[in-house]
Amino acid sequence: MTKSPVSRAKSGPFWEFLEGRLPAPPAAAMLGWKLSWVEPDRGEIEVFFDAHEGFSNPMGNVQGGFLAAMLDDTLGPALVATLDADQFAPTLELKVSFLRPAAPGRIIGTGRVVHRGGSIAFLAGELTNEAGDVLATATATARIIRPAQGF
Amino acid sequence: MTKSPVSRAKSGPFWEFLEGRLPAPPAAAMLGWKLSWVEPDRGEIEVFFDAHEGFSNPMGNVQGGFLAAMLDDTLGPALVATLDADQFAPTLELKVSFLRPAAPGRIIGTGRVVHRGGSIAFLAGELTNEAGDVLATATATARIIRPAQGF
Repeated sequence: MTKSPVSRAKSGPFWEFLEGRLPAPPAAAMLGWKLSWVEPDRGEIEVFFDAHEGFSNPMGNVQGGFLAAMLDDTLGPALVATLDADQFAPTLELKVSFLRPAAPGRIIGTGRVVHRGGSIAFLAGELTNEAGDVLATATATARIIRPAQGF
Repeated sequence: MTKSPVSRAKSGPFWEFLEGRLPAPPAAAMLGWKLSWVEPDRGEIEVFFDAHEGFSNPMGNVQGGFLAAMLDDTLGPALVATLDADQFAPTLELKVSFLRPAAPGRIIGTGRVVHRGGSIAFLAGELTNEAGDVLATATATARIIRPAQGF
């Protein structure tokens, strides 16, 4: 299936950023985050990361924690794409399984909303390399808030 | 209890780094990793991180994934401190609970080896701010290998 990068633009900072009218959040910029495609109606997203040498462990592979950061920045945006402009979704819990060592370079993240209730969402996704090997998988739980409500 | 930074130095790259004879691994350097103290006999460690603005999410707090990276770089070294010079311990699984928003600045990580078998270790730890508030907790499972054996 051919997917357009943004199937249905909505309002809010996430879409302003995707359309180039707001700078990337610092954490996303550091991870080399780029949108491949997003399907807000289904809560699905594919993104690209640029894992640079600065993320390496002593073995020369990407440190697992940076893979966790990439997964958080894949699963989170899958949910954020479904939200209203004034909603935000801090992650409550993130569980990552590290399947293979990850070399620096392009890493592809796919994320999806598995279930969304009124204020809690369950998310899942994975990272692959350009050869299609799954590097790491994750599940997460997020809470949907309006920032004025606090955490 | 007053703890010396390094209660019992051993050989290997981790100790070479702690004693300033090897540069920090890139991921540790990026996170501003500094040793507070380590107790290799008990598999316990306290480290400091410098969470800079570049780790921020759109709310201005440290993105959860970077807290996960810090926890991986706290729990991992607690185990590495107990290993032989030619052993390495890739993380198999990491689960993080995000308790409070984390402001950029100094973050303190404490990690411990909960149980270590022949080739698998179970780890736990947490991040706190300078006021002592717990920001995030984690458990992890790691596999102890000699790098020549592969993953």
